[in-house]
Amino acid sequence: MANTDSVSVRVFSLNCWGIRYLSKHCPQRYAMIGEMLTKEEHDIVLLQEVWSEKDYLCLKKKLACTHPHCHYFKSGVIGSGLAIFTKYRIHDTFVYRYSLNGYPYMAHHGDWFGGKAVGMAVLNIGGLTANVYVTHLHAEYCREKDSYLPHRVVQAWELQQFIRYTSAGADVVILGGDLNMHPQDLGNRLLRSYTGLQDSYLETAKFDGCEDGMTLIAGNPFITEKELGPFEKGIRIDYILFKSSSGAVVRCDSMSTTKGSVPDHPFPYSDHEALTAELRLESCSPAETGADGRSKAQDSTAGRLAELVDIVTEARTEVKVGLHCAERMRYTAARTGAMGLALLFLELAIAAVPWLALGAEQPFPRTSFYLLAALCFAILLTTSLLYVFYSMELKSLQGAEDQMRLAVGSLQEKLRGFPLAQPHNPPRRPPEGQEPGAFPPEE
Amino acid sequence: MANTDSVSVRVFSLNCWGIRYLSKHCPQRYAMIGEMLTKEEHDIVLLQEVWSEKDYLCLKKKLACTHPHCHYFKSGVIGSGLAIFTKYRIHDTFVYRYSLNGYPYMAHHGDWFGGKAVGMAVLNIGGLTANVYVTHLHAEYCREKDSYLPHRVVQAWELQQFIRYTSAGADVVILGGDLNMHPQDLGNRLLRSYTGLQDSYLETAKFDGCEDGMTLIAGNPFITEKELGPFEKGIRIDYILFKSSSGAVVRCDSMSTTKGSVPDHPFPYSDHEALTAELRLESCSPAETGADGRSKAQDSTAGRLAELVDIVTEARTEVKVGLHCAERMRYTAARTGAMGLALLFLELAIAAVPWLALGAEQPFPRTSFYLLAALCFAILLTTSLLYVFYSMELKSLQGAEDQMRLAVGSLQEKLRGFPLAQPHNPPRRPPEGQEPGAFPPEE
Repeated sequence: MANTDSVSVRVFSLNCWGIRYLSKHCPQRYAMIGEMLTKEEHDIVLLQEVWSEKDYLCLKKKLACTHPHCHYFKSGVIGSGLAIFTKYRIHDTFVYRYSLNGYPYMAHHGDWFGGKAVGMAVLNIGGLTANVYVTHLHAEYCREKDSYLPHRVVQAWELQQFIRYTSAGADVVILGGDLNMHPQDLGNRLLRSYTGLQDSYLETAKFDGCEDGMTLIAGNPFITEKELGPFEKGIRIDYILFKSSSGAVVRCDSMSTTKGSVPDHPFPYSDHEALTAELRLESCSPAETGADGRSKAQDSTAGRLAELVDIVTEARTEVKVGLHCAERMRYTAARTGAMGLALLFLELAIAAVPWLALGAEQPFPRTSFYLLAALCFAILLTTSLLYVFYSMELKSLQGAEDQMRLAVGSLQEKLRGFPLAQPHNPPRRPPEGQEPGAFPPEE
Repeated sequence: MANTDSVSVRVFSLNCWGIRYLSKHCPQRYAMIGEMLTKEEHDIVLLQEVWSEKDYLCLKKKLACTHPHCHYFKSGVIGSGLAIFTKYRIHDTFVYRYSLNGYPYMAHHGDWFGGKAVGMAVLNIGGLTANVYVTHLHAEYCREKDSYLPHRVVQAWELQQFIRYTSAGADVVILGGDLNMHPQDLGNRLLRSYTGLQDSYLETAKFDGCEDGMTLIAGNPFITEKELGPFEKGIRIDYILFKSSSGAVVRCDSMSTTKGSVPDHPFPYSDHEALTAELRLESCSPAETGADGRSKAQDSTAGRLAELVDIVTEARTEVKVGLHCAERMRYTAARTGAMGLALLFLELAIAAVPWLALGAEQPFPRTSFYLLAALCFAILLTTSLLYVFYSMELKSLQGAEDQMRLAVGSLQEKLRGFPLAQPHNPPRRPPEGQEPGAFPPEE
């Protein structure tokens, strides 16, 4: 890390809306995306919703010269839809699949089948180790009555954990993707506060793009009014986030988004707008960031800790709501299953009476008998599967709730031991209160 | 980290074999385990196969005074079976669920339902940040024809990735658990070589326990001869591993195992033997480990890199065998499903002929008709589920194979640029060849 020159890295992120046969003009749009990427030659390209591996392989072929290194993150039944193309060699990759991701029976929403995840690629940019993350969280289909909110909050929780722990050895952290959360949504606050990631839209020196950095806009022909709901002009749900470390300082020189149309083409690249951020990476020696190897700008303050406690507590409440719902659903599944079983026994009992009293007439027409039995079996099978599914959902929600409880306890203890609270006295339990614990990368 | 005194930490690990109503003398054994733990007062207790949360809660109650901090790692349908009890405050936890873990239809082996995972707890021991991991990999039911080998290798791969990336910010790493692998098995070599974890049995100054550190022994009354196969005396599959870092040196002062029986009790704690390791943690300043903050003892050597390339290549071959099997199974599922569908159409066609030629006699007795239709539906449903399952298995195996390919490429490039190969010339591509990339915690 002797290199003190700065490196400029152009990062691109786009949700490609690539559901074969279902997304409008899918092949044409992929052709446009490939063309644009070969022309623009971004350093790092992060794509989401590349649902078909064939489309990924087509892009790989097309970008072989401009982006020789790439990786497709595999996960779930269909795949994670996440891909990275880059000019830098990919040294290693790692993928974390979220424990919760919607419901399999909500097939029309389809999120469950996607195996949503966060993918990580380790690159070496001008002598700096850069951990680049790409992710796509569960969609929000109805903001007023968002039944997926606990799932998205748990995903945001797992995302921050994954980034926080895996990036401790990295000089630079870059995250791009469709978070499906507005800038001030709970999950977004949780992610940014806990990891210290900065939003390139808010940090950029220059910006050229949609109003308020929106990435889902009314001007996009693939977007219907209904999708935007009360946000008539659009919403900002796609992000490029970044973070400096003790080894490097990252700044955002400029940022841009597409604006709902592409010159010389009848439609845009996707239903989402594409983001491009120009980041400047400057390596620095530990001396510049203090002898303890930690950047002063990132030192935890009591205020930040207190804010974090509030956010995690809020997230915990949301997860508890999800727990309550999942428990109720599991109870309903169990009750319906029990009713199906009772119906089956009743039917068998009625059928058995004339069979025992030999010669008496069978009260059931055969067809009805078999159809009713089939119905009972179908109920039993469905409710059993649902029971198992809800049990897994409960386990994941309880797990996240447990982790949040622990984290809040630890944060509160740190807060109690914080020097600002007791200006000149040493804190009561110095080693546990101040040493790096829950915050390895930041403290 | 100004503290230069050493801290002694007693770590305990046991696979509790806690399947309620199925494992022999389960409640009595839990009572014995609880009693022993309160008496012995280990600093960190890592338990596996605590399948019932009720048993965990019982232990939690019993150990409230000796081990006030604990966590149960939730995952899957039943749970991960992993628990940690400790004297130190748990600052944070994180869990990674393995992407592959056997087959749901192998219900008698039951691994799939367990949601096997690796759990991590962040502790603060005498001012040092210790990442403590507990895990349990897929069992080996038949060593000669081990159809789960690719799954276990992928689990070992994910385990090393998880530990390597999440421990970069830790001073001390401790892993305890039932790896279900012999000391020289592929997965074990992969884990130890990649992470740099040391085996406390091999490193200990004093040892008291079973011959060769075995943890599944013929002398244990719960173990049958059949289970041990050709290894008449027993095998070593449970481990306590540890790792030093730039901030601390870890040594193993002594190690012991139980020996198949417990004084004053008619049977032992479990079918596995329990392990206890006494680790000595010594914090050290970066100056002692070199200006770059990395321990000299852990510097990568060309020999180590070459060994790693060989091991990852071997693992890749094993994963490819698994891929081949999964592809064949998926093909078989698809073919059987198609046959079920054809049979259903045939039946409907035969039934439809007399229905179209009005008045002709129905060739099918009704009961047979319905039974055959039900059979066809059952075949279709089962094969569809299997097809989806094998698709997910293929995705996970392909994902691991992709990651291994990338890793081998990156390791080989490092090896080419290694100074030992070109003693006094600068390597051709210095920034990419030598900077920390694939090995954040060790290089």
